[in-house]
This record gives sequence, C-alpha cells and structure tokens, in this order.
Amino acid sequence: MKKSSEIAPGWIAVDWGTTHLRVWAMSGDGVILDHKTSDAGMASLSKDEFEGALLRVISEWLSELKITPVVSCGMVGSRQGWVEAPYQVVPCEPLKNAKFAVAATRDPRIKFYVVPGIKQDSPADVMRGEETQIAGLLAQEPDFDGVACLPGTHTKWVRISAGEVVHFSTYLTGELFSLLSSKSVLRHSIAQNGWDTTAFKGAIDDAITKPSAIAGRLFSLRSEALISELSPETARARLSGYLIGLELGAARQYWLGQKVVIIGEEKISDAYYDALNAQGWAPVKYDAELMTLAGISSAYLKIRL
Amino acid sequence: MKKSSEIAPGWIAVDWGTTHLRVWAMSGDGVILDHKTSDAGMASLSKDEFEGALLRVISEWLSELKITPVVSCGMVGSRQGWVEAPYQVVPCEPLKNAKFAVAATRDPRIKFYVVPGIKQDSPADVMRGEETQIAGLLAQEPDFDGVACLPGTHTKWVRISAGEVVHFSTYLTGELFSLLSSKSVLRHSIAQNGWDTTAFKGAIDDAITKPSAIAGRLFSLRSEALISELSPETARARLSGYLIGLELGAARQYWLGQKVVIIGEEKISDAYYDALNAQGWAPVKYDAELMTLAGISSAYLKIRL
Repeated sequence: MKKSSEIAPGWIAVDWGTTHLRVWAMSGDGVILDHKTSDAGMASLSKDEFEGALLRVISEWLSELKITPVVSCGMVGSRQGWVEAPYQVVPCEPLKNAKFAVAATRDPRIKFYVVPGIKQDSPADVMRGEETQIAGLLAQEPDFDGVACLPGTHTKWVRISAGEVVHFSTYLTGELFSLLSSKSVLRHSIAQNGWDTTAFKGAIDDAITKPSAIAGRLFSLRSEALISELSPETARARLSGYLIGLELGAARQYWLGQKVVIIGEEKISDAYYDALNAQGWAPVKYDAELMTLAGISSAYLKIRL
Repeated sequence: MKKSSEIAPGWIAVDWGTTHLRVWAMSGDGVILDHKTSDAGMASLSKDEFEGALLRVISEWLSELKITPVVSCGMVGSRQGWVEAPYQVVPCEPLKNAKFAVAATRDPRIKFYVVPGIKQDSPADVMRGEETQIAGLLAQEPDFDGVACLPGTHTKWVRISAGEVVHFSTYLTGELFSLLSSKSVLRHSIAQNGWDTTAFKGAIDDAITKPSAIAGRLFSLRSEALISELSPETARARLSGYLIGLELGAARQYWLGQKVVIIGEEKISDAYYDALNAQGWAPVKYDAELMTLAGISSAYLKIRL
C-alpha cells in the first residue's frame, strides 16, 4: 500500500457516528486505496469542530488542484451533528439524492455531503446510518424482498420490498445489555467476555415463550451467583438471551415467515443468527462495514451522475 | 431537642445500606432522641473503615461508663460489608436473634449487632434490609397474612403468612428506570421530574396486557420526542409505567387475590399504588423508614431479652 501522502482518491467515504469516525480513500471506480479511523465521534464535537476533526484524518489525501467529494452517513447528519440532513419518510428508497445535505466548509479542497436518514411517523421511529447499509444490501441484491435485522446498540428490524424501506422498528437491546452488564448490580455476576451457547438458547426460549416472566429473571442472575455459583460466562449468555429473546418476541411480525438477512458485526450477528436459528430460521449474514461502504458508494454514484 | 452531646441513648438503631448510613439515638423504651444521616454507604468503605465511619456519626452519644448496643440492618451485613450476617432461609420468621452477627470493635463503648438477611434457594433470591421492614410490619400487625410490596432500586414482592416470610421475588425495576432515564439514549427525551398520570396508567395497561410488545416501545420514547414532540414529563411517566407494568405482570401471582401492603418511600409507593389501583386493587401504604425503625426496635428487644 502507498504512503497516505501519495494517495490521490477520486472521492472519500465517511461513516461518522456518535462515537467513531471512519474514512476510506476511494478510487473513482470503487477500489479502497486507504482506510483510517478516529475516535472523534459526533457526540464529542461542537458545530465548528467537525471540519477540523475531518481534515485531521483526510488532509493528506487532498489535492490543491481539485475538489474531492466526501460522502458521509451517520449521526453527523442529525440536528446535533455538523449539518442536518432531513429525514426521508417511509416508504422510500434509501439515499434519495435529492435529500443529500451539503455542509459549509472553509477548506476549498472538499465538498462534504451527508446522506438522509429515514423516519416513520407511526409508530414513530428513526434511523441514521442503517439506511446506508440497506442501500448497500440493495446495491448487491437489487431484488431483495424480505427483512433486514441490523443488530447493535439500537437494533433495527426493517421490512424491504421493491427497493424501498416499507417500515421498521428499533429496539434498545444492545444498550440495555451494556447498561445491565456494566452499570447495574448484575455487573458483579457477569463476565465481560465468555459465552455459554446452551444457556443463551435456553434464555431465548424462555423469553419468547414467557415474556411476562423475564422482568423477574434479571435479578436471578445476581441471586444465583450468590447462592448457587452461577458462572459469570453463563450469566452473560443468559442476560443476552433474555434481552434478545424479548426483542424477537416483540419483532415476531418482522421475521416470522420472512426471508431474513442480518447486517452487523461478527459477534453480535452470530448471536442473532443462533437465536433465529433456534426458532427454525437460517438468516444470511452480511458484514456491517462492507454494507456501509457499499451504501456510501451507491450514494457517490448518484452524486456523480 | 437536646444537643447531641447531651443525649444518652439506651441503644442506637442503624440502617446501613449500599449508599447511605442512617442512625437513630433511641431511649430504652423506644423513643427517638436524635437522628443523623451520612453518605458513608457500605459500598464506599473497606473492612477497616466501618468502625470509624460509624463513630464519626454516633460518638457524641456514647458514654465511657457503659456499653451501648448498636443494632444495624442492611448491606453492612453482606460479604463485602463489615461483618457477614448469615442469611436465614425461607420459610422463616424475620430477624431470628440466633442469627445476629457481632462485629469486632476496637472501641469498648459499643457492641455492634447486624441482623440476618433472608435467602431463598429456588428460585434463587436474597434480601438484606427488607426483612427488617417486614419485621416492622409484623411488629405492628402480628397477624398479617398477605403480600408486602417493597418498591425501590430492587423491588421485592414478599408472601407473608403466620409470622413468616414464605417466599419472595426481586425485580430490577427501579435500577432499570434509573439507568434508562439517565444513562441511555432515552435520557435526551426524559424529564428528571414531572409526571403524567394518564400516560403512566396507559403504559401500565399496555405492559400488563401485551408484555411482549414493550421491548419495542422503549425506543419510541426517543422517536416520538424527535418526531411528534412527546413531552419529557409524559415520556418519564410512560417509561415508569412500562417497567412497573412488566413487573406487575411477572409478579401477578403475588398480588392477584391477595391482601397487599406497600412499604416504600412516598413517591414510589404512590406510583405502585396507582398502578395496582388501576388493576382494581387498593393496597395499604406504610412508610419505609418507620417500618425499618420498627423492625430494628423489635430486633433490639430480642437482644435485650
């Protein structure tokens, strides 16, 4: 690979979320020339700090001789971000270019685009970032008809048909797991790593078949550790199983009888795969970063047209 | 009231929890002579710091001429506390004096007792502190036969019959509310104070009748704030209603068809009262601090015998 200062990208792809900034130097025909990450997430920046934070990671790639398009997705387009990219409303094709926002920049070497998120009025719901991964999926499978599960801090279930997002639903499952396993009294009984697949699947079943009982199961992860030496790894898998199981129960209309794909990072995608598999489903897994990049690339093609 | 240094209590009552230390100077016949609180909770102290933390709040009350009994309940009796008071096992009469633990003290003016908690082997569960409030209830109503709900960070539902704790169940409801309303993405949409009784009761009903759907309702508190201007006070009441409603659904076997009392602080007791009342129940409310003191007093009587 060339040194960063020798790279001359045709355009730059950016995934700018709450806690991270990821950038890719791309050739005009879609080859990744270089890749960098930074912890300058949107939540840590005020309005006038975004351009500087971006230039710190991409300036080596820029040329005085031209304007390099920079195409971004994620929370950078929220009201608290750099420039607000208005939401599209379901049903809609993800990344409609009419809705791209452009940030005012001081540096003449870049033009900074942000793709629109998607909102749903009833039931109220919003996404920023996932629409790009769905655009990536549709770029690879234009005829996809089914459901995408995008597990993470805020897991999304998205019904897709005829190239459009039809409706979707968001679950706090990842954030709940993180808070309960690291901030609640359960943290004393839960391993930060490790797993127990049997316990996970059992907890999934418990939560799907008796969701009303789960509120009473959470504290048992602490009690059983005190009384009957529940292992921290098993407790971790059971907590995850209870929470994902509750989500699967609530999202049943999304996956039951549908073609399902999972777009996420490897570990969490595997957990959702196992959970759905135990219910008799065999979803196809896609890598989240690849789908993000495929989606931003499809956005760039629309800009270039 | 006399100055602290002029008070000569017959004994001292202590409620020593994870985050607080409350002490009462008591006359031999049960009159409160003085009361102090400190933030020297058990979680902030190492083993050899407990005696000093206690003496800082009670030393003015002590006499060189006698040994003053100090009777304590709460997490101070846990393995991580000052001295471990072994659990009693259900079914059992709360505060059996055979199980009182005595801490080794350097100061000859005090003898420090800790009352035992209660554990249940199956389903695994534990309590430390609530058994004292139940002893307080039984001191006032020796023939109580029914269920005590003790709402708080970790809400307990306790079946009481013939003077004994028969079985009980713990719910993380209070801690979940605190984490979700102040640490999760929902914090942007949730008021720290304020209330909406109609929204609370609606959310209770939703959670009791369709517990499987609640996992999908939590994020809506954020989405509706962004899209349809949900008020932060209504969001607060709805979050509380969802979580308490899930608990009521899981604890249904405890309250349905039973005489129920609520032992708690005023605000949270009122919420549980409203929730149960909306289901057609009219529980009796008792003040948590009064019940704690009544329970510790009954423990002191057993020591003195």
